[in-house]
Amino acid sequence: MKVGIVGLGLIGGSMAIDLKRRGFADEIIGVEADAVNAAAALKIGLVDRVAQLQDCIGESDLIVLAVPVGAAVRMLPMVLDRFSELGCGTKVVMDVCSTKEQLARAVKYHPCRRQYVASHPMAGTEYSGPWAAMPGLFDAHACIICDSEESAPKAVRMVESLYESLNMRTIYMNSSNHDVHTAYVSHISHVTSFALALTVLDKEKDEKHIFDLASGGFSSTVRLAKSSPDMWTPILSQNRENVLHVMDTYIEKMLAFRQAIDEGDEEAVRGLIEDANRIRRIIR
Amino acid sequence: MKVGIVGLGLIGGSMAIDLKRRGFADEIIGVEADAVNAAAALKIGLVDRVAQLQDCIGESDLIVLAVPVGAAVRMLPMVLDRFSELGCGTKVVMDVCSTKEQLARAVKYHPCRRQYVASHPMAGTEYSGPWAAMPGLFDAHACIICDSEESAPKAVRMVESLYESLNMRTIYMNSSNHDVHTAYVSHISHVTSFALALTVLDKEKDEKHIFDLASGGFSSTVRLAKSSPDMWTPILSQNRENVLHVMDTYIEKMLAFRQAIDEGDEEAVRGLIEDANRIRRIIR
Repeated sequence: MKVGIVGLGLIGGSMAIDLKRRGFADEIIGVEADAVNAAAALKIGLVDRVAQLQDCIGESDLIVLAVPVGAAVRMLPMVLDRFSELGCGTKVVMDVCSTKEQLARAVKYHPCRRQYVASHPMAGTEYSGPWAAMPGLFDAHACIICDSEESAPKAVRMVESLYESLNMRTIYMNSSNHDVHTAYVSHISHVTSFALALTVLDKEKDEKHIFDLASGGFSSTVRLAKSSPDMWTPILSQNRENVLHVMDTYIEKMLAFRQAIDEGDEEAVRGLIEDANRIRRIIR
Repeated sequence: MKVGIVGLGLIGGSMAIDLKRRGFADEIIGVEADAVNAAAALKIGLVDRVAQLQDCIGESDLIVLAVPVGAAVRMLPMVLDRFSELGCGTKVVMDVCSTKEQLARAVKYHPCRRQYVASHPMAGTEYSGPWAAMPGLFDAHACIICDSEESAPKAVRMVESLYESLNMRTIYMNSSNHDVHTAYVSHISHVTSFALALTVLDKEKDEKHIFDLASGGFSSTVRLAKSSPDMWTPILSQNRENVLHVMDTYIEKMLAFRQAIDEGDEEAVRGLIEDANRIRRIIR
C-alpha cells in the first residue's frame, strides 16, 4: 500500500518509520510545508520521497494528516474535495489530531465524508520536528477512533489495521466525548506545566540560582512545558470550552488548597492530599 | 562510626542502606515509632537494631532525624537537650527535612546548637515507608547544608563526609533562602499535582472511563499526587508563606492562560506557550 503522510514531525515521522519497517506501507510519500523539515525527513530516511499535497493525494491509497489541528481543519476538506473529483472511490484519509469536534464539523456533510476516519493515537513526547521521530513511539499505547459509524466500514478497517501494525489498542468513542476526555487527561496537564514553567521562570529573573535545587519531581511536572506552540495553540483553541471547564475545576481545587494552607488548617490540607492520593489506584 | 537514624522511611531507610554498604557507618541503630515499620526495617535488614530514642542518642556518634518536619521540630530540641545532659561533646545531630526555617528557629538559642547541622538531600520518590527504601537513591543529586556558620566546623565536616559517601554535591545557603527556593522548585510541583489529581478524580465520579486515555504526559504531571500526607502536610504548613506566595503567582499565570483561551486570543496563547518553552534551557 502507498501511504501519504502530510506533516513530517514527531507523529508523522514516527508513523512513517514503523509503517514502512513493519510492512504496512510499501512506499511512504511525504508532504511537508517547511522546506528544512522536508529535506531533513528525506535525509534521515523517514519517507521514500516528498511530493506536493495534490500529487500525494493522487498517488496514495491512504493519506495521514499529521499536521497541527488548525491546519488539519483547513486541509481535510481539501483532501475530500480531491476525492470527490476522483469519484470518492477507495482512497482513505485519516487524521491524528488531539481534538476532534471541529474536524468532525468541518466535513460532516461532505459527499466523501465516509472516506475519512477520525483518529487519535495517544502517544508522543514533548519534542517536535522530524528529528524527534522515533521507532516504537506508539507501541502499547491507546488509540481512539471517533465517530466510526460516519465512516465506510472498509475505511475503518484500513485505519484499524494501520494501528494494529503500530501495536496500539483501539478505543471507540464519539468526537464530543473524546474532546471532554482529552481535556481532562491531557490538555489540562499541558496547561498546568506551562503555568508552572512561567511561575518559576519569572522568579528566576531575581534569583539566578533558583533551578540549582530542581529535583526529579519538578522536572516531571514541568516536562510538558517544552511542548510545541504550533501544536498546542490550536488544540487549546479548538477544545476551548472543555479546556476552560476543566481549568475552572482545577483553579477551584488550587483555591481550596490555598485556603486550607492560609488558614493553617492542617486537617483540611491532609484531607485534600489523602483525596489526591486516590490517584495511586490509577497511575502506577 | 555508629549512626542513629530516627525514622526508617524512604529517606532514612535509603540512607541506612548506603551508609552501611559504603563503610561510612559501622553500625546503624534505628528508631521508629511505628511498630510495623520498625519490624519491617529490621526484617529487610535496613538497620542493625532498633532502639528507643534516648538509648539511640546515647550510643550514636551521629543522629539523623529522618522524620516528617513537624515531628523533627518537636524532636530536635529533645536531642539537643540530651546532648546538654551529656555535656554537648562530639555527638552530632542532623535533619533531612524539606523546610528549614522553623527548625532553625526552634533551636536558635540552644546551648548545644553548634552540634546540629541543618541539611536537605534533594532526592526521593513519591513512595514512602521502609519498603520504599533503595540503594543509590541519593547518587548524583544535590544536597543543601543550611546556616553552616551556626554549626561547629567539625560537625559540618562530619555531615559533609556523610553526603560525600552518598555521592551528593553539596550546596550551602541560609534556611530562609532554602525555603524560598524549595517552594518554587519542589513544593509548588506537589500542590499542582495534588490539584490535578483532585480535578480528574472528581470527573471520574461521572465518567468511569476517564482514565482510559491517560497518557505518559498525564502520568508525569500527576505522579507527585501519590506523595505521603504525613510528609507533605507539615511541609506545606511550615513553609506556608513562601508556598502561598508561589501559589498566588501560579494562579495568576493560570488565569492569564484562561483569559487568553476564553477570548480566543491565539496570539496570546502562543506567546504564553513560547515563554513557558524557555524551560527547555533548564530541564533536559
